[in-house]
Amino acid sequence: MAKPKIYLSGPDVFLPDARAIGLRKKRLCEEFGFVGLYPLDHDLAAAPGATLDEKIFSANVALMRQADAGIFNLTPFRGVNADPGSAFEAGFMAALGKPVFAYTNNSAALFDRVAAAHGVHGAPEGEYCDAQGLSIENFGNADNLMLDGALKAQGRRVIRPDVTLPGCGDLDGFMACLRQAQAHFSI
Amino acid sequence: MAKPKIYLSGPDVFLPDARAIGLRKKRLCEEFGFVGLYPLDHDLAAAPGATLDEKIFSANVALMRQADAGIFNLTPFRGVNADPGSAFEAGFMAALGKPVFAYTNNSAALFDRVAAAHGVHGAPEGEYCDAQGLSIENFGNADNLMLDGALKAQGRRVIRPDVTLPGCGDLDGFMACLRQAQAHFSI
Repeated sequence: MAKPKIYLSGPDVFLPDARAIGLRKKRLCEEFGFVGLYPLDHDLAAAPGATLDEKIFSANVALMRQADAGIFNLTPFRGVNADPGSAFEAGFMAALGKPVFAYTNNSAALFDRVAAAHGVHGAPEGEYCDAQGLSIENFGNADNLMLDGALKAQGRRVIRPDVTLPGCGDLDGFMACLRQAQAHFSI
Repeated sequence: MAKPKIYLSGPDVFLPDARAIGLRKKRLCEEFGFVGLYPLDHDLAAAPGATLDEKIFSANVALMRQADAGIFNLTPFRGVNADPGSAFEAGFMAALGKPVFAYTNNSAALFDRVAAAHGVHGAPEGEYCDAQGLSIENFGNADNLMLDGALKAQGRRVIRPDVTLPGCGDLDGFMACLRQAQAHFSI
């Protein structure tokens, strides 16, 4: 059987060492029996689209359609939440019915991150709100319930390891996703 | 012909007046010839899922599958980016091949918001980065290129009106999306 292809989604592409981390992830994919598809590898010259951003969009969409599964890095990016590009891609692959795996290098629940960064008021009778009066989801999830929910609907959870390196450099969570993918694909 | 159904996605559900803004949006949908499907209206008792968040997830997914199109409020939420739940849903509906419409009540480009909130360094030869060294997309888009790209691939742009009310209270952008939807569905 051909090795299953895994789309590697996350804010990793914005890191100073974006290409190096992509290589590390693809090498780990190989070790675990997969082929990793990393967004920075695509052939933009051939991609449809009038402008560079449109070409990147259509190339990423092509990779997601080609992939058998996706691993999503939901580590908070420029704030308390996951990168919206990764969130978009998680929705895209979930809608295609493909298995989605995810990890975050911030083990705190969304609720605790929002409370720490934006304050917490209200409840226990009503809802918890931040200092701006915006309600805070309090389900113990890693992020917005649509993200965690996509995994729960497939019988999995977002992996939230205790990591020593802050940010996206630690790949323990990524490897845990690869082990879940091995179980899913019986590898 | 039955009125097309539009899924109403956005961080509106987290606002103190979440139900009131949902009613306003649904009333506008009716005026423009549509039926608005607002996430807070679903029947959670009947939704599959072991816990409340799982039930909300599956009910939202059912609404998106039922809808003929989606209007996404991409106004920045708790930071420089769109709410990741809305981003997930935009990806979900784009993958289903449904028309996606979007607006934001912050007319600034993502690049300018990130530069203002997180600093800007580097370029013109290389890439622009924020103070943490994370590269900043510089395409003039409203948000991450996957979000704008989903609309561009369908021949549209994220609507970025100059609004007088900060936050999500102003519905000029929402109405502009409804006009685009009328053109799309020939209403």
